[in-house]
Amino acid sequence: MQYHLNGFRPGDPEVSDAAPGRPEDGMPEMLDVLIVGAGPAGLALAAQLAAFPEIRTRIVERKPGPMEKGQADGISCRSMEMFNAFGFAEKVMKQGYWVNETTFWKPDPNRPEHISRNGRVQDVEDGLSEMPHIILNQARVHDMFLEVMRNSPSRLEPDYSMQLVGLEVDRAAGDYPVFVTLERLEPGREGELVAVRAKYVVGCDGARSRVRAAIGRELVGDSANQAWGVMDVLAITDFPDIRCKTLIQSAGEGNIIIIPREGGYLTRLYIELDKLAEGERVANRNITVDRLIAAAQRIFRPYSIEVHEVAWWSVYEIGQRLTDKFDDVPEADAESLLPCVFIAGDACHTHSPKAGQGMNVSMGDTFNLGWKLVSVLKGRCRPEILHSYSAERQAVAHDLISFDREWSRIMSEPPEMVGVEPVETPRFQRYFVEHGRYTAGMSVKYNPSVLTGDATWQSLATGFEIGTRFHSAPVVRLADAKVLELGHTVSADARWHLYVFCPDEDPAANGAAIGRFCNYLSDAPNSPVRKYTPAGADIDSVIDVRAIFQQDRHDLALEKMPALLLPRKGRMGLVDYEKMFCPDLKSGRDIFDIRRIDRKRGCVLIVRPDQYVAHVLPLDAHDEIAAFFDRFMVP
Amino acid sequence: MQYHLNGFRPGDPEVSDAAPGRPEDGMPEMLDVLIVGAGPAGLALAAQLAAFPEIRTRIVERKPGPMEKGQADGISCRSMEMFNAFGFAEKVMKQGYWVNETTFWKPDPNRPEHISRNGRVQDVEDGLSEMPHIILNQARVHDMFLEVMRNSPSRLEPDYSMQLVGLEVDRAAGDYPVFVTLERLEPGREGELVAVRAKYVVGCDGARSRVRAAIGRELVGDSANQAWGVMDVLAITDFPDIRCKTLIQSAGEGNIIIIPREGGYLTRLYIELDKLAEGERVANRNITVDRLIAAAQRIFRPYSIEVHEVAWWSVYEIGQRLTDKFDDVPEADAESLLPCVFIAGDACHTHSPKAGQGMNVSMGDTFNLGWKLVSVLKGRCRPEILHSYSAERQAVAHDLISFDREWSRIMSEPPEMVGVEPVETPRFQRYFVEHGRYTAGMSVKYNPSVLTGDATWQSLATGFEIGTRFHSAPVVRLADAKVLELGHTVSADARWHLYVFCPDEDPAANGAAIGRFCNYLSDAPNSPVRKYTPAGADIDSVIDVRAIFQQDRHDLALEKMPALLLPRKGRMGLVDYEKMFCPDLKSGRDIFDIRRIDRKRGCVLIVRPDQYVAHVLPLDAHDEIAAFFDRFMVP
Ligand SMILES: Cc1cc2nc3c(=O)[nH]c(=O)nc-3n(C[C@H](O)[C@H](O)[C@H](O)COP(=O)(O)OP(=O)(O)OC[C@H]3O[C@@H](n4cnc5c(N)ncnc54)[C@H](O)[C@@H]3O)c2cc1C
Ligand SMILES: Cc1cc2nc3c(=O)[nH]c(=O)nc-3n(C[C@H](O)[C@H](O)[C@H](O)COP(=O)(O)OP(=O)(O)OC[C@H]3O[C@@H](n4cnc5c(N)ncnc54)[C@H](O)[C@@H]3O)c2cc1C
Repeated sequence: MQYHLNGFRPGDPEVSDAAPGRPEDGMPEMLDVLIVGAGPAGLALAAQLAAFPEIRTRIVERKPGPMEKGQADGISCRSMEMFNAFGFAEKVMKQGYWVNETTFWKPDPNRPEHISRNGRVQDVEDGLSEMPHIILNQARVHDMFLEVMRNSPSRLEPDYSMQLVGLEVDRAAGDYPVFVTLERLEPGREGELVAVRAKYVVGCDGARSRVRAAIGRELVGDSANQAWGVMDVLAITDFPDIRCKTLIQSAGEGNIIIIPREGGYLTRLYIELDKLAEGERVANRNITVDRLIAAAQRIFRPYSIEVHEVAWWSVYEIGQRLTDKFDDVPEADAESLLPCVFIAGDACHTHSPKAGQGMNVSMGDTFNLGWKLVSVLKGRCRPEILHSYSAERQAVAHDLISFDREWSRIMSEPPEMVGVEPVETPRFQRYFVEHGRYTAGMSVKYNPSVLTGDATWQSLATGFEIGTRFHSAPVVRLADAKVLELGHTVSADARWHLYVFCPDEDPAANGAAIGRFCNYLSDAPNSPVRKYTPAGADIDSVIDVRAIFQQDRHDLALEKMPALLLPRKGRMGLVDYEKMFCPDLKSGRDIFDIRRIDRKRGCVLIVRPDQYVAHVLPLDAHDEIAAFFDRFMVP
Repeated sequence: MQYHLNGFRPGDPEVSDAAPGRPEDGMPEMLDVLIVGAGPAGLALAAQLAAFPEIRTRIVERKPGPMEKGQADGISCRSMEMFNAFGFAEKVMKQGYWVNETTFWKPDPNRPEHISRNGRVQDVEDGLSEMPHIILNQARVHDMFLEVMRNSPSRLEPDYSMQLVGLEVDRAAGDYPVFVTLERLEPGREGELVAVRAKYVVGCDGARSRVRAAIGRELVGDSANQAWGVMDVLAITDFPDIRCKTLIQSAGEGNIIIIPREGGYLTRLYIELDKLAEGERVANRNITVDRLIAAAQRIFRPYSIEVHEVAWWSVYEIGQRLTDKFDDVPEADAESLLPCVFIAGDACHTHSPKAGQGMNVSMGDTFNLGWKLVSVLKGRCRPEILHSYSAERQAVAHDLISFDREWSRIMSEPPEMVGVEPVETPRFQRYFVEHGRYTAGMSVKYNPSVLTGDATWQSLATGFEIGTRFHSAPVVRLADAKVLELGHTVSADARWHLYVFCPDEDPAANGAAIGRFCNYLSDAPNSPVRKYTPAGADIDSVIDVRAIFQQDRHDLALEKMPALLLPRKGRMGLVDYEKMFCPDLKSGRDIFDIRRIDRKRGCVLIVRPDQYVAHVLPLDAHDEIAAFFDRFMVP
């Protein structure tokens, strides 16, 4: 963490000073961004925007206050990486359950009416992420985002008990083209309507999204829903794997997913119920929690499970469904119109809970959208980049829903048999292992576009695949010998990053590639750093440049490095010493090796504000680097 | 973290429910414990006691509110281990500066008026602790303890603007023998006196302690003080090691210690000033911050340093001094009297800032005292154990002051010369490396006593030295495959711990040593677990038993383990799955190897509530284990 740049400030560095006039009372008539719905998608967006008090943001939520329990609980490694950018990953790691091992149970070959363990696999493959796979109540995840908002200069809090009831877009109306009607729900003011105009509205309002309806889009997919029972219980059982994530396929009683929960005692059980008829609502079946418990008890045999407290339960229907586009611009008008209404999360894609995607993909949506809105509203980027939100995230949702559909189907199949014997390694176990990258959130790959380069120079760093998330690795900081994850230099602050991996030469030598590159960035008229950093702003406030050398720290002299890597910042012009790194040679995990970087040529890695690799280029590709940023940035 | 044991509870698990009637308004007339002074010593004690709302504790502080800056900033590895027991180590790691490397500068042999780098050493030797050496403002450390107190069931807050002005002990007066007079200092109520009676008073009131004076003790030691200048600055320099802890000995301008600070920009400089005359106060010398800056600039030559903001500075005198005893019982009366007034921290020992001990040793004092007070007040332990506080901590302070004195002397020596050349590796550099265990807080070793066993069976685990702090190592939890530090199973909750390292046999086999040991603890009339756990309380609420097996997790069957290792707890009798561990074989760091545990015989490690190893015994030494606890516990 870096702080005290503009003077010593007592107190918690994670609590920013409030910006003048914040928090703001009442609902302003004009807003830059109105977020509808304070679920994971809405809160992940609000937490990003809250860092920019000059952007007027509000988030409305129909419910009277923060969520307390229930709904999703799986946090993928990828979401943890994102949480790290928000600064609360270590709190989630402390409070959450770590999924280390998944176990598989199937009918006992000798006594098929009993289940027996068929296998155990490490849940996250080695090296996939520096972050663990975590289970934590969705409500607690909300709390973490709410805390980021509360501590931000905007002091943003959701407006609870307020729902969106109408939305219309009138592009002819100028800068604030979205006309919204909100309705108050709090006792005493029920039914009061509030009219708001916004530059942008983001519908994070869940599967029955009104925002989606207002822009004329539909969730399309399964004709029939699958019914699920889920319960968070405090129970006593002799089932030995109750503290591991477990998939059980019984011979005739159905399937269960066990999700051990935070705190050491709580357990979530997912019980697959029937496929519903088209249009049927599970609520009409009057399924009770006792019926769920009885079903679990049958599936667990020969083990017993005795439920002492049900903290939360639900029976709900879900289908894999998807919206064709995540904004208000018809495909045909993409050349002429700019989007001003977006939908995110369950509002545009719904998943079964089996693959644990709902909350993760929803946060991923708005982590993608957030920096784009910031960049456009701050005048850094052309508004055309907003088209990329739907293009990128719709494709992701499409993929993940296909995965989810396949996975759900396999999970629901009756146990495979070879004659009367269940097969040795059932398909659900094989599929789980093969598709770990999906569940971990690492399968996302954005296609070449205005924001994502092509693969021309991919060979310079094959371990940083263009379009995928920046895969962190350990490095040692030159100035103070601290070992840290290079990926943890990215915060949710809408900045771009250039990581310069230096060739195997003395970086301080005359004519060294890093020196020439830094000169280019500092001095050339087409340098993106020069062109796109506002006058008077810190040199790294839009594009952050860091170098990684191949040498051991002790073989380098900090004082001989290019000035751009010891930038002077803030009102006093203090030196930022956190721009240079060396490989963590002591651990044996040399970033040049593990990410397969061309040691002779080195490379420049362009990383987006949302941690995705935008491009890999040679150090001397000055014009190409300039051209890349020129595609979407505004001087 | 374990929570939800007695039912699901929404919200932050680190915030306990307030106990009935807490927080309490006004100052009660009768208190169990009155703490005087809210510095590191007082707050570390208050944070422990706050977990027990049945103990009536108050902490008074003369200042009007929490500290904001200045004073100490070094947090030793040992203190970090202690912070982990309080649950805030990860926050300190996030916000603090990590001391990874210490560099040494001395006069340049070729140009003695210039300094040049003479060496760099890793600051903390490998394997010394799982925790780093951290630098963080003392004020922030206070904040962390205050947060623990605020979130505790007691909701304890210091009573600011209130000072102790009188203290008398009248043992004839019954259960509340300490008569205290407090004076209010807040504007409008200045001078109001409040009379309080307490069972125990702990003077954590700093070097000029009134509590110490009231019990007739004195700080004895250096006749003259050493003057020091210290400043926390935001500065610009070309000195390359400004982000490393650095010791500079200049040829003729004096010495500096550089302590890089949290946040990346702040730097602390310690400048050694003159030795004062006896009784002289440095305040009378009118040393200005400009003079300190000028001195620094001379020492830094040929480098420049330009100070832009002084966040805090002080010129102060310090001598190494010590009180002969840390409680109110004269040595001669130890057999007949029980202590009821204690002093801790700077009130009984003062250090130079060079070794960075002041804050660390002060917190160490009250971490030692806290669980003893809790155990006596809850009726778990005999009040005689309170004698051990002074016995243990006075010896520690004595050692550390000797170390500090030697270290200060060496630091102040003029640069050693061989003819006209400075010696290659000066003494201050050699001494620093050789005494890293002292600075890290690991040199503490309590002598055999009622609380600390003798070395009879030390050979069963030579890596866990009796009397020293429990040196953590990684293990894998049997139930859920989580890799964690075994030492992190200890919280600041006054519980004892039995870690049973099992012999190399099948622990589930009939007659296995762990089975016999658990049977003994569960059933034998002289089992300390049976004898000292109150009826109705959780089985691990006084003595926590955990087992570490030698096998790989997958070779063990959880369900076959002794019931004591799957204890049923809380109002529902839920199973605690966090009592059994295996070595972390994957990392290659097998706890049996790195702590040199006898694989054939195994051992029982008794660990005190303050993380010190009390005893090492064989698994079949039932009577000895019983006898150990019988020495100080009350059934
Ligand atoms: C009852 C239920 C149980 C679930 N259980 C599981 C589970 O067990 N496992 C799992 O993986 N996933 C589960 N999910 C799915 C998971 O919670 C979602 O995938 C995830 O929350 C999606 O996040 P989101 O922000 O897109 O939408 P949501 O979390 O649905 O948030 C939408 C928010 O918008 C608010 N809102 C809606 N309309 C308006 C309006 N007009 N004006 C203002 N506010 C509005 C809603 O009150 C809600 O707070 C469950 C969802 C529900 C609803
Ligand atoms: C000005 C100053 C500068 C220091 N600088 C450094 C440094 O640079 N580096 C370093 O390592 N250490 C430094 N120290 C030492 C370090 O801060 C102490 O070693 C450490 O704080 C000791 O902790 P403590 O809790 O024992 O005492 P203290 O932190 O001194 O706390 C004692 C508290 O008791 C309060 N108090 C005193 N008398 C009464 C009374 N009668 N009634 C109520 N309250 C009372 C005081 O206001 C104070 O808050 C400095 C100390 C001081 C005073």
